[in-house]
Amino acid sequence: MGVVSLRNFFVLSLALNVSLILRAVNQNEKLHYGASMAVEKGAKVAKMTFLSLPSLSCPSAAAPETQTPLATDRVINLDHGDPTMYEQYWKPMGDKTTIVIPGWQSMSYFSDVTNLCWFMEPEFAKQIVRIHKVVGNAVTEGRHIVVGTGSSQLLLAALYALSPLDSSNPISVVSAAPYYSSYPLMTDCVKSGLHKWSGDAKVFDKDEPYIELVTSPNNPDGFVRHGVVNRTGGILVHDLAYYWPQYTPISTPADNDLSLFTVSKCTGHAGLRIGWALVKDVEVAKRMIKFIELNTIGVSKDSQLRAAKVLEVVSNSCEQAGGLEYAESFFHFSHALMTKRWRLLREAVKRSGIFSLPNFSPAHCNFFDNYLGTQPAFAWLKCDRNDVDDCENFLRRHKILTRSGKHFGVGSKYVRISMLDREETYNLFIERLSEIISSYSYI
Amino acid sequence: MGVVSLRNFFVLSLALNVSLILRAVNQNEKLHYGASMAVEKGAKVAKMTFLSLPSLSCPSAAAPETQTPLATDRVINLDHGDPTMYEQYWKPMGDKTTIVIPGWQSMSYFSDVTNLCWFMEPEFAKQIVRIHKVVGNAVTEGRHIVVGTGSSQLLLAALYALSPLDSSNPISVVSAAPYYSSYPLMTDCVKSGLHKWSGDAKVFDKDEPYIELVTSPNNPDGFVRHGVVNRTGGILVHDLAYYWPQYTPISTPADNDLSLFTVSKCTGHAGLRIGWALVKDVEVAKRMIKFIELNTIGVSKDSQLRAAKVLEVVSNSCEQAGGLEYAESFFHFSHALMTKRWRLLREAVKRSGIFSLPNFSPAHCNFFDNYLGTQPAFAWLKCDRNDVDDCENFLRRHKILTRSGKHFGVGSKYVRISMLDREETYNLFIERLSEIISSYSYI
Repeated sequence: MGVVSLRNFFVLSLALNVSLILRAVNQNEKLHYGASMAVEKGAKVAKMTFLSLPSLSCPSAAAPETQTPLATDRVINLDHGDPTMYEQYWKPMGDKTTIVIPGWQSMSYFSDVTNLCWFMEPEFAKQIVRIHKVVGNAVTEGRHIVVGTGSSQLLLAALYALSPLDSSNPISVVSAAPYYSSYPLMTDCVKSGLHKWSGDAKVFDKDEPYIELVTSPNNPDGFVRHGVVNRTGGILVHDLAYYWPQYTPISTPADNDLSLFTVSKCTGHAGLRIGWALVKDVEVAKRMIKFIELNTIGVSKDSQLRAAKVLEVVSNSCEQAGGLEYAESFFHFSHALMTKRWRLLREAVKRSGIFSLPNFSPAHCNFFDNYLGTQPAFAWLKCDRNDVDDCENFLRRHKILTRSGKHFGVGSKYVRISMLDREETYNLFIERLSEIISSYSYI
Repeated sequence: MGVVSLRNFFVLSLALNVSLILRAVNQNEKLHYGASMAVEKGAKVAKMTFLSLPSLSCPSAAAPETQTPLATDRVINLDHGDPTMYEQYWKPMGDKTTIVIPGWQSMSYFSDVTNLCWFMEPEFAKQIVRIHKVVGNAVTEGRHIVVGTGSSQLLLAALYALSPLDSSNPISVVSAAPYYSSYPLMTDCVKSGLHKWSGDAKVFDKDEPYIELVTSPNNPDGFVRHGVVNRTGGILVHDLAYYWPQYTPISTPADNDLSLFTVSKCTGHAGLRIGWALVKDVEVAKRMIKFIELNTIGVSKDSQLRAAKVLEVVSNSCEQAGGLEYAESFFHFSHALMTKRWRLLREAVKRSGIFSLPNFSPAHCNFFDNYLGTQPAFAWLKCDRNDVDDCENFLRRHKILTRSGKHFGVGSKYVRISMLDREETYNLFIERLSEIISSYSYI
């Protein structure tokens, strides 16, 4: 090969290199450009609704260390529990969790006419039974499974199903404060004549039937809970969205009349809008199904199929952990991540004299077969300073968005902070919180 | 530069080329491998789910001709409008409408924080605007799009958004009989204090605010409709689920304050549970969005992405009809199928002396640019025999399941019959109906 032609080939080859590299760089840039667009516009909309977005809160370029402290920092939105943290687990899973849906599939309203819950995909039901067996967090024998568009819809379905039809007065719905901030809004959304929100279960003393919502572990504070109203005529609904090993020790399989779960907080797939209920009484299950028929005529089949696939991979990861395919189970991975996050938060808050956090006693977790602490999906932070009455406002001044305790039926000294956002957002939050603590410890 | 070193650089550069190309190829392969894997598994799931439905409604093996008439026949269930007829169109489409969703995609609650409707996928919104432009059946300019879990959820959201918040009495909700059988049940499901079902709009004479539900073309009878209550203080909600060219001539783009649509009846994808509203007033749109937040915290992203893909293919088929890819548009195909079905039904019923059907005047369809008849998604059949008061019971005796007129606010002389079931079921129905007519014409 002559020098000239070799040089030509070299130039050609270099050009190809440059083109391929540019292509790769360009793809990455598009990704970042899209994200930062959303960040800018997001701030405006998030203000309008209760929501916000992960991208609002995640600074893509600058490392936390190089941030100018306080005033010039970007907004960190930890107001709601968007579980984007879990992308870290699912991205490397690659094809294991990919699903392909041809255009002609799942066109009918019906999924399984042999099942009471005729709009439930059989594969979804199968994977629900399996995951509870693998994790040991709920009894499924003798239970009817009802799928819902997230556990929100199932909560409404449960209220509908459990409210007496023949009563002239709506039944009282209570939950011990601090309770999930959406319960009052959901219960009274359309001013139902079937049920009405009656506030903190701890002070409920009416001599009449009631429905008590028991969230365990609790949103916002993470504690394990049981019914607190000590009265006859009470009906309990257990919201077990967070009863998974990464958040709390699994001490016993839940064996309730009516338990609610959601994939959002189990695997992190909130965008699927898939939840399920385990229901003992067949008539209650039937009425819940009726509600979902009238509300949305069933539940997205596509999302059920995706949920089934994701849950299958989680169960596989538990049963095959340590092998070639799954070095560790999904729950090992997410438990370790939560442990790290809670360690960082407790270190920052410790001896601050400004903030405090709930303390949890270790308990035996049957799933991990070990005594372990509790590391909730939300931090329930109290502002201890006497000159700060409104912790949400205080943190907002430092561009950390949280949800005030007043929405949870307690004082504004408290805020709820999501622990489930993306890693960079969480690290920036810890950085910012440490800066606040440093700057105020001199005052 | 010497020959040797140039050669070395050339080899290095080539190696880099190869590595970059392999990386690109590898990524594509992963995608394809994932796709074909999931296709196989998908087929299995589809079999499991689909075969369950026909057992209720459609005899799968025997051809209609070989059926033993009447008593020994299988049950033909045409009670609800399951749009499985459309599988005929989508199956041959192959990969055009297949979607692939990796496990880490759409995990967040949020789809587009720049949009008022923060849980709506941008691609879905884009395809909604496009399909209305292509078909010419609705104005989208100056409208807010709100996505819902089927149009059922959007109807409830609309009732919530339009009911006065400060009134001590619930607002009346009316619709001209025969009206969609679910309206009364949905309006009064949880005994809302915001709104109450008040029956047939034609006889509504209270001097107070009201919401009128206008279904056009109407379910069950197929007629084009406008509001009938002639009073001030009325708010109209237009349910345009069937305002598509296969069912009725598209005379003008709908230009209402609030219109509801659903993919279920447009493309046949009922299992997706996806509908949308076109809303003029921003405050109404905001309240609808608030309702969906409290009801289900958004709408399945997976189903929105699928709906976007399916609608894209429908629009493509309209714009490229006659070409290689699309011999005919989706609407040409489905219009022809409906024409054939209505011809068969009218031929069977004609001169029977037992049954009669509504008659529709031809009108100009802008989409097909032709004068065309109406061929509704349901047949609104009247039993004319004096000795038959209950047409539903009469047909049930012959194992044809329909929905009685009494559920639609009129007498039981009428039944609603789905025209959208699979071909074999429909043909069996025509066969059975002809047998009934023959046997009774001698009595």
